[in-house]
Amino acid sequence: MSEATSIQADLLVSAKWVIPVQPQGAVLEDHCVAVKGNKIVAICSQIDAEKTINATETLYLPSHALIPGLINAHGHSAMALMRGIADDVPLTEWLEESIWPLETKFVSESFVLAGANLAVAEMIRSGTTCFADMYFYPDQVAKAALAANIRVQLASPVLDFPTAWAQDADEYISKATKLHDDYRHSELIHTAFGPHAPYTVSDAPLKKLSTLAEEMDLPIHMHVHETAKEVSDALAADGRTPIERLKQLGLLSPRLVCVHATELCNEDIASLAEAGSHIVHCPESNLKLASGFCEVAKLSKAGINVALGTDGCASNNDLDMISEMRTAALLAKGVAEDASALPAHQALEMATINGARALGLDAMIGTLEVGKYADMTAIDLDALNSTPNYNPISQIVYATQSSQVSHVWCSGQQLLKDGEFTGLDIQAIKSASAEWQAKLSAATD
Amino acid sequence: MSEATSIQADLLVSAKWVIPVQPQGAVLEDHCVAVKGNKIVAICSQIDAEKTINATETLYLPSHALIPGLINAHGHSAMALMRGIADDVPLTEWLEESIWPLETKFVSESFVLAGANLAVAEMIRSGTTCFADMYFYPDQVAKAALAANIRVQLASPVLDFPTAWAQDADEYISKATKLHDDYRHSELIHTAFGPHAPYTVSDAPLKKLSTLAEEMDLPIHMHVHETAKEVSDALAADGRTPIERLKQLGLLSPRLVCVHATELCNEDIASLAEAGSHIVHCPESNLKLASGFCEVAKLSKAGINVALGTDGCASNNDLDMISEMRTAALLAKGVAEDASALPAHQALEMATINGARALGLDAMIGTLEVGKYADMTAIDLDALNSTPNYNPISQIVYATQSSQVSHVWCSGQQLLKDGEFTGLDIQAIKSASAEWQAKLSAATD
Repeated sequence: MSEATSIQADLLVSAKWVIPVQPQGAVLEDHCVAVKGNKIVAICSQIDAEKTINATETLYLPSHALIPGLINAHGHSAMALMRGIADDVPLTEWLEESIWPLETKFVSESFVLAGANLAVAEMIRSGTTCFADMYFYPDQVAKAALAANIRVQLASPVLDFPTAWAQDADEYISKATKLHDDYRHSELIHTAFGPHAPYTVSDAPLKKLSTLAEEMDLPIHMHVHETAKEVSDALAADGRTPIERLKQLGLLSPRLVCVHATELCNEDIASLAEAGSHIVHCPESNLKLASGFCEVAKLSKAGINVALGTDGCASNNDLDMISEMRTAALLAKGVAEDASALPAHQALEMATINGARALGLDAMIGTLEVGKYADMTAIDLDALNSTPNYNPISQIVYATQSSQVSHVWCSGQQLLKDGEFTGLDIQAIKSASAEWQAKLSAATD
Repeated sequence: MSEATSIQADLLVSAKWVIPVQPQGAVLEDHCVAVKGNKIVAICSQIDAEKTINATETLYLPSHALIPGLINAHGHSAMALMRGIADDVPLTEWLEESIWPLETKFVSESFVLAGANLAVAEMIRSGTTCFADMYFYPDQVAKAALAANIRVQLASPVLDFPTAWAQDADEYISKATKLHDDYRHSELIHTAFGPHAPYTVSDAPLKKLSTLAEEMDLPIHMHVHETAKEVSDALAADGRTPIERLKQLGLLSPRLVCVHATELCNEDIASLAEAGSHIVHCPESNLKLASGFCEVAKLSKAGINVALGTDGCASNNDLDMISEMRTAALLAKGVAEDASALPAHQALEMATINGARALGLDAMIGTLEVGKYADMTAIDLDALNSTPNYNPISQIVYATQSSQVSHVWCSGQQLLKDGEFTGLDIQAIKSASAEWQAKLSAATD
């Protein structure tokens, strides 16, 4: 970038710190990112930018860090409407007495759309530009994502038993392939198969999904080893861990994304590493439901790609990837009994490039790099809790609140500006949420 | 409050939800708190307030929860200047290669004052109205607290070895008693003895402190059982756990506040419970330094009062009691392997009344109650991440950011109004921090 070639750009964002995520740990002081259309076309120093970049619009962020848009690699966005409806109860009671009965009664197109609208707004406000979603009526989540111009990977659910969305595994799978067809040319909407969990999907549909995923070149996104009970039940039933069973069914591959992974023996870890499968760690949900600990430091050391997700709002209770990074970085140290485990830059990688890898989108997003989509988040570090600032990556992970997210772009389009939404009608989203709250409250009283 | 008696008040705060903390879990909808001078003079419904309270000033908070001011029961405020200076390194390396050399080089009156000013501002911004502080030059922390009108308990440090503050145990103790004399009639400044830890203070000064604390009616605030190594070293040295040694030295009493308490055997727990000693849990610091897990649910069940603290900024890296409540509530579930452990209302108690009990100030603060000081924090729950709102206490603990703290009062004086400081010069505080950052950075390069 030292030659005086002229680069045309629509937008030049000049920030105190540009954190591209790759190279690992790099912090580029007084740097710029130039955007043309939906892509990044240059990253250079402010001095070089003055000489070489001709931009229609220039934005100067004097106390901000510019990072890749955060990637929430696992969630159930519509469950935002159930935020805090059943806290502090054991997992079985939570599912069987609260969540499942409410879902049976209320889950519908309009519920999912209202919930996804709320979740998408919360995610944008907290710097997330891409999320993986596993829920019924994924077409409604697509609608919410397109309306907000945020990127999503829809893991279309597959179960053995009937719900409002489908009657049996065949119908779930057929709806999943249709969803893929509907969005195969979309820039923002990606799809995956979402078999719920080893204990809710039997061998035949899993084998079918394995074949289809290969034919259609799609990821398989699945809850795996969420709790000790899941593993011990499986061992009692047929002497295999769920991972071992998935391996024998041919599901272990770079397409497989295992969410939670709290109870892995050394053989399971070796199998996942060898297969190149991914793990999504959801630390706050794992803690809140007392599911168990995911040994992130050990898994990363084994060479497994570990991404980060919030899980749904009913077990978190927010969709805040900045606080999730902090919880991940802190918890990993406690679990590994090693204060050097999961350093700040690695937590940021989990929330960006590792998420992109898990979703199979790392050629497009996950770092600030020329040629990738302009998915970017600016965080204002001029706050008391970010003062003094010896290391911006450490500040973001250990001391920042997501309310400090000031600007967000997805595919070059600005979604948040000085903390304000550029397009969404937040009052309408809140009103719709209040209506659903009234209905759900009435049903639980 | 149903009779039409007229109560004169200076301020009537009317909030959507008043959460007094006692009775446990109570949420009073559309209620008011009336303040006269520095005290709470009435708590009643908005309807009753209209009939009975004659207030000079009225404030209506339509989407807010009003809670007791948060109590940060353990920290080292001046270390705010070392926020993030040495992350992701093991405890011994952190202390011996970063923190202690920096303290030796820089700790002075002006360092402590600048750090305490920064910390106090961050605490007020995040809803804290009282903090326990253990650091050198506690007189400077008092100065910062008085300037900001925030309540503090200064645990005046005692060590066997010399620092810039004192040369030997006798001098530390003599400075501690002088500090107490200086502030014995202060409404905001309270004092305690702060022997650093069992492994840094020998038997003779500990016995002396035990006698003095009883004579002067003062708490003893001490790091105890911070790590497994501390306990195993003690066992190797003389066959006793640190708690057992403190018991034999006569220190276990309702005056003793044990900070950290990560490695307690059943005998230690029984001793603390029998003595009525307190524990301050610092979950984020324990995780960050991989110190070990404090079994909060088990300790509470044993009848021990467990309060909450952030610890210093160099091992956290913020002073945010709202995120600390969340970490405490989440982590306790994981550690106890029980999703019902440490429910939201109990986390709020730890951050308010339990803190007041540990500091010996529960007759004055820690709940919203008539006759107590008007230490109050309002949190605006009209945010996407607080929507919908089935239970305000759950929202505060599991989904709120401290940036939602809107109003803060301490002893009836307003410190924060619509998120803005009423008195502090934040730019001056930031400038002073930047100057110290430059000096510390130069020393670590």
